[in-house]
Amino acid sequence: MKIDIITIFPNFFDQFLTTSKIKHAIQDGAVEINIHDLRQYSDLKGGRVDDTPYGGGAGMLMTFPPFYNLLKKLQTEDTHTVFLSPQGNVFNQQTATKWSIEKKHIILICGHYEGIDERVLNFVDEEISIGDYVLTGGEIPAMVITDAVTRLLPGVLNEASYIDDSHQQGLLKYPQYTKPEEYEGYRIPEVLKSGHHENIRKWRLYMSLKNTLIKRSDLIDKKTLNKEESKILNQVKKDIETK
Amino acid sequence: MKIDIITIFPNFFDQFLTTSKIKHAIQDGAVEINIHDLRQYSDLKGGRVDDTPYGGGAGMLMTFPPFYNLLKKLQTEDTHTVFLSPQGNVFNQQTATKWSIEKKHIILICGHYEGIDERVLNFVDEEISIGDYVLTGGEIPAMVITDAVTRLLPGVLNEASYIDDSHQQGLLKYPQYTKPEEYEGYRIPEVLKSGHHENIRKWRLYMSLKNTLIKRSDLIDKKTLNKEESKILNQVKKDIETK
Repeated sequence: MKIDIITIFPNFFDQFLTTSKIKHAIQDGAVEINIHDLRQYSDLKGGRVDDTPYGGGAGMLMTFPPFYNLLKKLQTEDTHTVFLSPQGNVFNQQTATKWSIEKKHIILICGHYEGIDERVLNFVDEEISIGDYVLTGGEIPAMVITDAVTRLLPGVLNEASYIDDSHQQGLLKYPQYTKPEEYEGYRIPEVLKSGHHENIRKWRLYMSLKNTLIKRSDLIDKKTLNKEESKILNQVKKDIETK
Repeated sequence: MKIDIITIFPNFFDQFLTTSKIKHAIQDGAVEINIHDLRQYSDLKGGRVDDTPYGGGAGMLMTFPPFYNLLKKLQTEDTHTVFLSPQGNVFNQQTATKWSIEKKHIILICGHYEGIDERVLNFVDEEISIGDYVLTGGEIPAMVITDAVTRLLPGVLNEASYIDDSHQQGLLKYPQYTKPEEYEGYRIPEVLKSGHHENIRKWRLYMSLKNTLIKRSDLIDKKTLNKEESKILNQVKKDIETK
């Protein structure tokens, strides 16, 4: 997969591109990530890319021509062009999975200032928001999407390591513990030391369902539970009531 | 406000801290941001902070002791300690606003690997997720929260410049345009050149309601509309039907 990121802060991605998973995904050829400095496509003095809004209003807007010039160069038939905007469809794990399978080339446009000249949207396939909050620019959302999609590309992670990630199976994860067994009076649950695999599996399923019920019951409503899960969920509910 | 970020990738935040709004907010004293390298609080060789899970399972977990050691040092009565996790309450603009007003000190814990030793949660006030997707680590979410909260702190932005941000008023924003008036055949709407402030205000309200209705009708359901907004919304619906 190829990901092109359009930004006025190209250095913002320096560390991101050299950090662990992303670096390896690039080295292994799973993904190609290019950072494009929008200012280099401005016709104005000093690479200026902002101006005041027509009709009045606070702040500055990003101008249309630099985007037009750069997008004309980057876009092909295979391109999915995304503008990162609080107005967009909310990004989730389903979108990440879909894109990791279906898309060959993604362009991520990072907005800034008070917004972007609306004419840019003529060249955009989809507006995407990473959540219902306002950020200074699109750079952090571009990292969110690049990270979420890249880690799902073939060969980037072992399947075992994401198959029971929270959200991947529609349930939150069970609690996990590592060494030391005891620290400053805080101990791990006894069952995890038992070596009894079936008991551990059941305890984890129980805790996973309990976590999800308490923290994100909407996920339980959306999921189709199998027979064992339904039975254990009833036990969780009973245990919570009698507590 | 003071924000402490706990991470195994302290350099990840280099560019973020020196970029525009955040840099100015730090210089102006609106926010103090400290990045803490978790490895410096490990008792193990080479600052090791990960180990295998008790009870089996794929991947590595972050160990408890380094967090215990660092949190003991940082936490006070005023601290709101947040673990960034896909299991958490979903962050939104209301949370950002609330924290920007109420919290004096926020600690953001960035997880990594397959998860964190559950005992760390004894020292956490709240688990927060920035959305329903899985990321490699908590560093990008920590940036999301720091950015969203910092820009709402007194003096960081002019009030005028965020008062009509998307989501701040419960509606998406109207389309905006800046110079040039025409480029490669793409023109701005005529009304914006009229200089008629009342017509421009009404056009913007119409487009804001239309945008929200088409892209995020759930926001309309949640908002209490005033008389003018209700009237214009009816017009929008009529116009969409007859189109």
